[in-house]
Amino acid sequence: MPAPTRFWEAKPGRTFVGRLATGSDLVEEIERTCADRGISAGEVTVVGAVRTAAYAFYEQSQQRYVELASSDHHELAGFVGNISLRDGKPFLHAHCTLADEAGGTVSGHLLRGTEVFVAEVIITEWTDVSLVRAHDETTGLALW
Amino acid sequence: MPAPTRFWEAKPGRTFVGRLATGSDLVEEIERTCADRGISAGEVTVVGAVRTAAYAFYEQSQQRYVELASSDHHELAGFVGNISLRDGKPFLHAHCTLADEAGGTVSGHLLRGTEVFVAEVIITEWTDVSLVRAHDETTGLALW
Amino acid sequence: MPAPTRFWEAKPGRTFVGRLATGSDLVEEIERTCADRGISAGEVTVVGAVRTAAYAFYEQSQQRYVELASSDHHELAGFVGNISLRDGKPFLHAHCTLADEAGGTVSGHLLRGTEVFVAEVIITEWTDVSLVRAHDETTGLALW
Repeated sequence: MPAPTRFWEAKPGRTFVGRLATGSDLVEEIERTCADRGISAGEVTVVGAVRTAAYAFYEQSQQRYVELASSDHHELAGFVGNISLRDGKPFLHAHCTLADEAGGTVSGHLLRGTEVFVAEVIITEWTDVSLVRAHDETTGLALW
Repeated sequence: MPAPTRFWEAKPGRTFVGRLATGSDLVEEIERTCADRGISAGEVTVVGAVRTAAYAFYEQSQQRYVELASSDHHELAGFVGNISLRDGKPFLHAHCTLADEAGGTVSGHLLRGTEVFVAEVIITEWTDVSLVRAHDETTGLALW
Repeated sequence: MPAPTRFWEAKPGRTFVGRLATGSDLVEEIERTCADRGISAGEVTVVGAVRTAAYAFYEQSQQRYVELASSDHHELAGFVGNISLRDGKPFLHAHCTLADEAGGTVSGHLLRGTEVFVAEVIITEWTDVSLVRAHDETTGLALW
């Protein structure tokens, strides 16, 4: 049986606006920023560009990620993400859209291994809500 | 004559964070969530994946939607949306970006008929603002 | 040496919700709206469609923008953006995703010259933070 639709009311916490170091890992650097500031739930958006890209497609029938990668430069043309706790640490779940020099576009689930060229990051913290990822039988994913 | 640029100042209301049931209709389930909680204006973002996709392109010259669909699984790689009132009920206007197993991307105006695999949803309510959709002569669309 | 990762804590300011005039310039009209209301930092999202598109890819090795353009209608299928100060005025840095009548997608860094068909815009102001763009040696870009 799939889990029913569930919503929690969160309170807005702190808002952090910043820029990641060129050469850092996009996912790790956002997670480190959250860990350093004690952020365990929130929303993340980014405007930026990457030197390399690591991303994935979740094969829903086989319940496994198909990993994709590019060693080319891309604009980070779109980004939606949230922060929750996984194994007790801030975990970034983000999907991104990547553009090449002709505007050609690929997109998917963002993985570690994506190297920052420029990343203007907004982190909006949520408080009064506990988002903890645990295995979900229906999808095979770690969900809150 | 096109309507002039117009802005209203809204106040931040409640923030709801949640997850939609696997198998539910992405648009309907978000609208139902808003109706159940009395949300008549707000912003919506989603990180997720869908089992099927129904979306559209608005043909500006002919003032009609060209409907598109896919029965394939896709990552919901991007999502921008807002809630307003249409015919007295909460109405979701959202555009989405969809990724296939090779990262290949299509995108457009989200329609009913898109089946949720996973949807982590954030709804930020706005108060002190009235967004009611009505027919706009210039575009042929229902706008606020 | 690249600049280190840096974050500032911002306070939420006003929230403006509005719609741009059909036929206006997407970038200029958002910047004018911010200038008129004294917004010098914030986040911007848009759901809409454009009559023409002007966008770009930043060539990281050569440190120059490759300009791209289309005279076709597109859905504005995705949009991430922020407001900061450049040369003392509100400056929009935004990336967008554009969809054609078959769902085909291009994306990149949004430029002036993109003509609005419909644009439902949300501007969330940040206060207590000063985001001023200045030349960054490592990337060749004007960054805060």
